[in-house]
Amino acid sequence: MIVGIVGATGYGGIELFRILSTHPNITKIQLYSSSQAGEDFETIYPQLETNERHTLLAVKPEEMKEECDVVFLATPSGVSSKLTPDLRGGKAKVIDVSGDLRLKQPEDYREWYKKDPAPTEVLDEAVYGLPEWNQEAIKKADIIANPGCYPTATLLGLGPAISGKLAKTDSIIVDAKSGVSGAGKNPNPLTHFAHAQENFQIYKVNQHQHIPEVEQQLRVWDESSEPITFSTHLVPMTRGIMSTIYFSLKEEANTEELLQLYRDYYSDHPFVRVREEGQFPCTKDVYHTNYCDIGLTVDRRTKRVTVVSVIDNLMKGAASQAVQNMNLLFELEETAGLPEKPVYP
Amino acid sequence: MIVGIVGATGYGGIELFRILSTHPNITKIQLYSSSQAGEDFETIYPQLETNERHTLLAVKPEEMKEECDVVFLATPSGVSSKLTPDLRGGKAKVIDVSGDLRLKQPEDYREWYKKDPAPTEVLDEAVYGLPEWNQEAIKKADIIANPGCYPTATLLGLGPAISGKLAKTDSIIVDAKSGVSGAGKNPNPLTHFAHAQENFQIYKVNQHQHIPEVEQQLRVWDESSEPITFSTHLVPMTRGIMSTIYFSLKEEANTEELLQLYRDYYSDHPFVRVREEGQFPCTKDVYHTNYCDIGLTVDRRTKRVTVVSVIDNLMKGAASQAVQNMNLLFELEETAGLPEKPVYP
Amino acid sequence: MIVGIVGATGYGGIELFRILSTHPNITKIQLYSSSQAGEDFETIYPQLETNERHTLLAVKPEEMKEECDVVFLATPSGVSSKLTPDLRGGKAKVIDVSGDLRLKQPEDYREWYKKDPAPTEVLDEAVYGLPEWNQEAIKKADIIANPGCYPTATLLGLGPAISGKLAKTDSIIVDAKSGVSGAGKNPNPLTHFAHAQENFQIYKVNQHQHIPEVEQQLRVWDESSEPITFSTHLVPMTRGIMSTIYFSLKEEANTEELLQLYRDYYSDHPFVRVREEGQFPCTKDVYHTNYCDIGLTVDRRTKRVTVVSVIDNLMKGAASQAVQNMNLLFELEETAGLPEKPVYP
Amino acid sequence: MIVGIVGATGYGGIELFRILSTHPNITKIQLYSSSQAGEDFETIYPQLETNERHTLLAVKPEEMKEECDVVFLATPSGVSSKLTPDLRGGKAKVIDVSGDLRLKQPEDYREWYKKDPAPTEVLDEAVYGLPEWNQEAIKKADIIANPGCYPTATLLGLGPAISGKLAKTDSIIVDAKSGVSGAGKNPNPLTHFAHAQENFQIYKVNQHQHIPEVEQQLRVWDESSEPITFSTHLVPMTRGIMSTIYFSLKEEANTEELLQLYRDYYSDHPFVRVREEGQFPCTKDVYHTNYCDIGLTVDRRTKRVTVVSVIDNLMKGAASQAVQNMNLLFELEETAGLPEKPVYP
Repeated sequence: MIVGIVGATGYGGIELFRILSTHPNITKIQLYSSSQAGEDFETIYPQLETNERHTLLAVKPEEMKEECDVVFLATPSGVSSKLTPDLRGGKAKVIDVSGDLRLKQPEDYREWYKKDPAPTEVLDEAVYGLPEWNQEAIKKADIIANPGCYPTATLLGLGPAISGKLAKTDSIIVDAKSGVSGAGKNPNPLTHFAHAQENFQIYKVNQHQHIPEVEQQLRVWDESSEPITFSTHLVPMTRGIMSTIYFSLKEEANTEELLQLYRDYYSDHPFVRVREEGQFPCTKDVYHTNYCDIGLTVDRRTKRVTVVSVIDNLMKGAASQAVQNMNLLFELEETAGLPEKPVYP
Repeated sequence: MIVGIVGATGYGGIELFRILSTHPNITKIQLYSSSQAGEDFETIYPQLETNERHTLLAVKPEEMKEECDVVFLATPSGVSSKLTPDLRGGKAKVIDVSGDLRLKQPEDYREWYKKDPAPTEVLDEAVYGLPEWNQEAIKKADIIANPGCYPTATLLGLGPAISGKLAKTDSIIVDAKSGVSGAGKNPNPLTHFAHAQENFQIYKVNQHQHIPEVEQQLRVWDESSEPITFSTHLVPMTRGIMSTIYFSLKEEANTEELLQLYRDYYSDHPFVRVREEGQFPCTKDVYHTNYCDIGLTVDRRTKRVTVVSVIDNLMKGAASQAVQNMNLLFELEETAGLPEKPVYP
Repeated sequence: MIVGIVGATGYGGIELFRILSTHPNITKIQLYSSSQAGEDFETIYPQLETNERHTLLAVKPEEMKEECDVVFLATPSGVSSKLTPDLRGGKAKVIDVSGDLRLKQPEDYREWYKKDPAPTEVLDEAVYGLPEWNQEAIKKADIIANPGCYPTATLLGLGPAISGKLAKTDSIIVDAKSGVSGAGKNPNPLTHFAHAQENFQIYKVNQHQHIPEVEQQLRVWDESSEPITFSTHLVPMTRGIMSTIYFSLKEEANTEELLQLYRDYYSDHPFVRVREEGQFPCTKDVYHTNYCDIGLTVDRRTKRVTVVSVIDNLMKGAASQAVQNMNLLFELEETAGLPEKPVYP
Repeated sequence: MIVGIVGATGYGGIELFRILSTHPNITKIQLYSSSQAGEDFETIYPQLETNERHTLLAVKPEEMKEECDVVFLATPSGVSSKLTPDLRGGKAKVIDVSGDLRLKQPEDYREWYKKDPAPTEVLDEAVYGLPEWNQEAIKKADIIANPGCYPTATLLGLGPAISGKLAKTDSIIVDAKSGVSGAGKNPNPLTHFAHAQENFQIYKVNQHQHIPEVEQQLRVWDESSEPITFSTHLVPMTRGIMSTIYFSLKEEANTEELLQLYRDYYSDHPFVRVREEGQFPCTKDVYHTNYCDIGLTVDRRTKRVTVVSVIDNLMKGAASQAVQNMNLLFELEETAGLPEKPVYP
């Protein structure tokens, strides 16, 4: 299988390259970059060199869609909305790791991303690539909209409760925290080490572009879903997301009942692990893996549920989930090429 | 003025020592330690040496209460409950930085701290030392229960809304994050660098001993207050607390109206700074200071309020607030001896 | 192949377990622990759970040496000196990741480790497992003394120059820096997050137990070698070692000549990568891999050589180098089961 | 006293502003910025707001030199070389925190800074502001060249030995490590949090512009001084420098003798603290202070000396040393306005 990666020099692209390099079903990786075409990838990143070298190729959709079996778009928002239409109709499946194809309503994209949306027919065709929910549709898709990092952690933490219609839909509050790599490779004052270190920052309060993505999926699960409160914070670490999720139950339930519901819901899904009662995951538990680990409790005093959901934002929140989607698309083992255990410490 | 510090070798004690060393009204500092009495403080901490050295003295309440004008108890929980009774009746005022004297109901202490409470008459006499709210009582007190770190950030973020009876009291959710120094000087697996670094952890979900402290004060401000949801997380940084606080309003208000209410509430309080609309503080904004910085917004979509309140947990959350209380007790300038500007970067 | 890991719950043991879990030639992993025998490994480390669980077994050398093909000793110093004698004479090869079997002279061990050395015949039999130098001996060994983390980085940075007899042997200074995981899993004041974060510490100046290990190997390469100056520092990061190595040349050479010597020396060794002139590796370049990356320069002003050598202390400095040794012992691909590319960022 | 700070929005400028705000002899601070003139300083840095606000003023040397008693230049290299000539001849003393006025030979500046040097008469007039060595000249100066961060730590660690002519001058190797703030406020790939965190980097090997500054001073102390080897590394922390310094003695001496020499040398200097035998400072020991802490040992095996010298790079390495120089210039207490104890933890 030949894969192409567009945006290979960004954090998501590097991670895809690393994973796919040892994927048992990949025979060749082609790296594309519009800004650095012609350069040698291993000269830019000498630490990624093994015995093979890669020249960064110019982005030519007409050729790519015939040469590649699958093209990953690891590009900033605003790129794949323009590129995907030209990648249709060939051999290649498209897995878009950016946010361009996730929102079904073009006006939502325009409002939250402040950019022009992709053509409606592309948005219609794109399948939301959350494998723990949407596996059957993914297998048949030509275009996958790979979920965002915050939405992945949040939706996996909410899925059983919302699709089971257990939660009061106006009660959901998500307090999400992310490592700094989520902000991308471009240096800026917020991600300057001397600013971000020994610092905890909140940003884009009520304005993060992942909010409509979460809400769209919640409405799929429970059409009565209402807008949620969703806060995003920057943690002085490179990787990892924790979504601490709060909601009230329509009917009383205890922790063990709810845990059992979650375990059942994810019983066929190797990448979601539900902790025992009284135990909660930390972000390092899933470091460099495709896992989403979940713990939860029902407060005996307030009857409110607290769900803790953690992922590695560059892996399950981006690159490894994209590979998981590729595995499903090509009917490979869902776990093929993905790390089995987290790195610790 | 002669001050005594019990528990001088812990994080809170060191911080008190550092601040008081250059306080304009302090003539002498006496350091006490039950476990290290007789040792030389500057031998243990050579970095704190200037031209004066201090021997750690044994804890003898009978002498201390006559020699010192004020005794700070920077001890683990379970110590000042036993020590404070013996410190009463002398010259010395007592400022307890531990949690032993904060909860008015002995059974609350027993339930949340799993220890024996202080005698009822001591609890009755202790004044809750949140200077932005309780200034008049503090000035007349003999015993101050210095607030906990999480409660300080949380209560200052909630005070105007709750005492103004604007919030639905069953809607309050506090998602709090703290630097690792909040866990104290004793090494343990959770605070091991290799575990805590590049990690974000949740702990004591719904079980933190600061929950009843917050709720007790909320009931003072609004007797209809109900139990709150309160989560505590460990951030891979040494200092700083951010409380992200969510609640619903009884009646609609916009961000600017609410900000104005907060500004008015804190207009006479030099250590609380309210940000402009659209701006939110980060923990580094108050690094090594006694400030509590607050930002807030009303979400136009959910009508829910998000308040962001940050402090330095060892300063406003412990030592510098204790000095602020001392200043009030002795009718000094409220800001005497306290740093004026945060360290940045 | 059946492998046993003694000391499975320490940092080295966990890392071995993680690597061996996906090693293509391993059919079964048995975990041993003297302090936690009988406990369930995945209950202690829920994040390491996949579909298989492991009970920690008691350390019974007589059984282990027949059941296992290879036993890894990931134990604190002082354990394998006692355990290895009982593991001899069976089926199992022994790879000792601790420092017990590295020093050939028992009195050196006694002096630097302040403990009783292993029996002389065990020390004699143990082969120093630095695969880039000692490959042929390793292949025939029954007992491998896996090199220490600092010695691995340092010796790979010095090997070509010393074995080529280019360096003035009384001029060598090694300034080594390590992440905190090198200090092991046991919490102590030096590794407390609040102490180690935002801090850079020097420790064991001229007294580190890895000094005689480096010197012993230097004398193998050049018998005229003299004692070296060797400093160890603690970097506020979890993983990674950089040895910055200084020495004077006997005869003048320029940077490119020296680089070519290093490239030739390591041409058959997939895990050592030599950078281009003007480029130097950082520790993240080898994060979570078995690589040792090297850069060097000859100062035109002082004629002194600066070599920069980086490894991941828990990987090439411990667990993955042990697996590399296992691969050689069992005539597998030298790279089998080892990560191909570093994690970045 | 009225002070001006040029480059007020950079890290050095902010630090100067913070210190001078509470300096007992300063009545007014004027902030200057060429790029942000007209903007409100406290709007850019709301966390620095107290009850006073500052407008950033345009840089007008003619006015500044009459209005201010002292002007601090906290500017990037290449600015004060041009600005200082216009600041001469008025009331104001000039303290240049940049590297422009430190090298006495214009061609050295041109070679190492790759920029045009300041006029010779300015270089001649500028006094090197290392107060522990040059106190008398500083008191009479009109222009102070405030030492660089690495040179401060290194020279204070070498001063007693070199000026005492104890060291073999061709044996000096300095392995220096700095926190990331030393790279300034401008974001770049090397200081991006996701790159710098969990990473240890070497940079500018043998090429750092601080090398000639150190060597120039060494020649002042011992005219036989030869070029040194000097390496600079980036530590994943915000502040702090450690210089680990190696040299050989001309004549044998033991650790205690050398320590005594250092203690005597610095006996009148409140900001240099020499540790006891067997003890070495870490960077946190001087965090946010003007101290330079020093430990040393003579290796019994190699006879080589290892000196460890730590400073806070933004304080003793920049802003607080500039204030110390101001104190000397104006015959104030040398310690006036400077923090007495480090922040810990």
